[in-house]
Amino acid sequence: MSTSSQSSYPMSGGEDQHSYIHNSSYQKAVIDGFEEKARQNILEKFDLLNLNPHLSTFRIVDFGCSIGPNTFHAVQNIIDTVKLKHLKESQENSLVPLEFQVCFNDQPNNDFNTLFRTLPSSFGQEYLSMGVPGSFYGRVLPRNSIHIGYTSYTTHWLSKVPEHVCDKKSSAWNRSYIHCNYLIEEVTNAYKIQFTKDMSLFLEARAEELVPGGLMIVLGECFPDDVAMYETWSGIVLDTIGDCLLDMATSGATTQEKIDLFSMPVYFPQYSELKRAIEQNKNFTIEMMETTSHPLEDKQLTNDFIVSMFRAFLSSIIETHFGDGVVNELFYRLDKKLSKYPIDFDKCKKKMVYYIVLKRK
Amino acid sequence: MSTSSQSSYPMSGGEDQHSYIHNSSYQKAVIDGFEEKARQNILEKFDLLNLNPHLSTFRIVDFGCSIGPNTFHAVQNIIDTVKLKHLKESQENSLVPLEFQVCFNDQPNNDFNTLFRTLPSSFGQEYLSMGVPGSFYGRVLPRNSIHIGYTSYTTHWLSKVPEHVCDKKSSAWNRSYIHCNYLIEEVTNAYKIQFTKDMSLFLEARAEELVPGGLMIVLGECFPDDVAMYETWSGIVLDTIGDCLLDMATSGATTQEKIDLFSMPVYFPQYSELKRAIEQNKNFTIEMMETTSHPLEDKQLTNDFIVSMFRAFLSSIIETHFGDGVVNELFYRLDKKLSKYPIDFDKCKKKMVYYIVLKRK
Repeated sequence: MSTSSQSSYPMSGGEDQHSYIHNSSYQKAVIDGFEEKARQNILEKFDLLNLNPHLSTFRIVDFGCSIGPNTFHAVQNIIDTVKLKHLKESQENSLVPLEFQVCFNDQPNNDFNTLFRTLPSSFGQEYLSMGVPGSFYGRVLPRNSIHIGYTSYTTHWLSKVPEHVCDKKSSAWNRSYIHCNYLIEEVTNAYKIQFTKDMSLFLEARAEELVPGGLMIVLGECFPDDVAMYETWSGIVLDTIGDCLLDMATSGATTQEKIDLFSMPVYFPQYSELKRAIEQNKNFTIEMMETTSHPLEDKQLTNDFIVSMFRAFLSSIIETHFGDGVVNELFYRLDKKLSKYPIDFDKCKKKMVYYIVLKRK
Repeated sequence: MSTSSQSSYPMSGGEDQHSYIHNSSYQKAVIDGFEEKARQNILEKFDLLNLNPHLSTFRIVDFGCSIGPNTFHAVQNIIDTVKLKHLKESQENSLVPLEFQVCFNDQPNNDFNTLFRTLPSSFGQEYLSMGVPGSFYGRVLPRNSIHIGYTSYTTHWLSKVPEHVCDKKSSAWNRSYIHCNYLIEEVTNAYKIQFTKDMSLFLEARAEELVPGGLMIVLGECFPDDVAMYETWSGIVLDTIGDCLLDMATSGATTQEKIDLFSMPVYFPQYSELKRAIEQNKNFTIEMMETTSHPLEDKQLTNDFIVSMFRAFLSSIIETHFGDGVVNELFYRLDKKLSKYPIDFDKCKKKMVYYIVLKRK
């Protein structure tokens, strides 16, 4: 079950301009891109009959759902596909009518109020809905109760900042860097160890929650094995945010000490590392593991887009560590700095989007 | 499943002085009073073995849970009792270890964020938890999935204001009264019809959600058959709030028209009416139906206590109908008026607290 000692920084809540609701289109592009693939996989890999011919409640979970609209979109796609499959199989076999229950999981400090208040009209007509508070690095749902689990752009949030990374006396101290940019080997190793541990916890918990034959769909970003975070455009943005914080320390808006003790619990793995972490869990068969480029990879993203996206993603963790009132200035400075030193997307190394389908043995 | 057209006015959320969190002790007195009775009933009436010897997930729901601490207290009592029963029965029969899942149900505009952020430490250790948004006058949970349902001080909130009660052309128009004080017969009848309809919807939905043998515990307030709302202390408070609104219309802080078109979807039934409504549903056996006086019935409640309690209960509906900024003045006026014309609790007719245990056939 979930532990409350873990760190948790939700996407920006509410419905205003800075909310994740209006700043999640980068993630949506990936979800849309895989929509057809998810349909195919569910139709091909999922065996309703073998599962339980008397099944009447079909449970779907979005782990780390944040707030809409991406989560509503993703679960609707899964429901539509299962309905189609159920309809087909019902023609040959007499299946019980299915009732869908969608479990929206995220940390207890996620903005569930906004999530529930913006539920689409298909809720109440097509599915029952519930919010499940708790860290997905532990159990959040009953044993053997879930038919399809889904998670998208979530497992780069580690359960906590790796040990020693914020310890000035350690060789794994991340100095003034605010994330794992792969520039200090000991830091990178500490992050790698934490990522592998967390992925193992994630899959162990899901293995208990999923029914035999159940599917777990995992979407996210990783790097080719020869690419380092600092070489990618998002690595550059995070390093630029770090530079802005250093400028703010100089002007007195924050302190060098605070920056030295800050490193984000965020890590994007390299491909073979991710693959190893997945393969280590013996409770699942890997039905599919594909990578592709991000649909917006070749686009020169505007500064506005970048600033808004990173603000929705980072406000909560920045405010928690640096205090109130830092966020506005920080992202104002980020905007200025990106205007002055624009990112040359053509020269950046490319990240990859991964799409994994696991089946519970 | 739930319909969004129904009216819904949650208890005051958040954690400040006006929140229901700090103004729910009147309800808590009743819950505490019935705690021992709930234990006994679960121990006597509930048959874990007959239910399913392979049961591994035990599901408990609090329908209309609002925010803590009452809901946490009530579900913990149920869990402790089921655990005790399970332990006893496991000694004679080999039962699977139980995992508890607690479903906290309330309207989608309930303050689930505060609910989740104040979950007691036993969550995560003793039970998995989920929030279930939706009106309990429709289905909110899967068929045949719940073992013990519980609801306390909720079913006096009707699904909507009865028809015609806010229609100036109708003989059932409630004039300047803001609630069903039993002073206009046609109004009372309209409320009675709505209450009976709603109780029927409530029980129909629960009958689908509960497993055969499952228990539904219902706590609330009603009147003896010869008592009318306006004769009770809470009826007097509501009528006094109505008087304050009329004063505010005179001073221009609101309008007579707004008051004429306002009547609360709240109704406390008389005992035999409640009994009939329960008996009409044939899916349950009535295992117990008891009434008693409220534990604080003989206490002269202080004005502070009354004002705070009614503010937590009514802020949301008052604000929705009369607009922002009315609430502070209204409850300030209520305080003044109660000081000037104190309620003589000895002369008030007494309400009753009811405690019902139903078993799903």
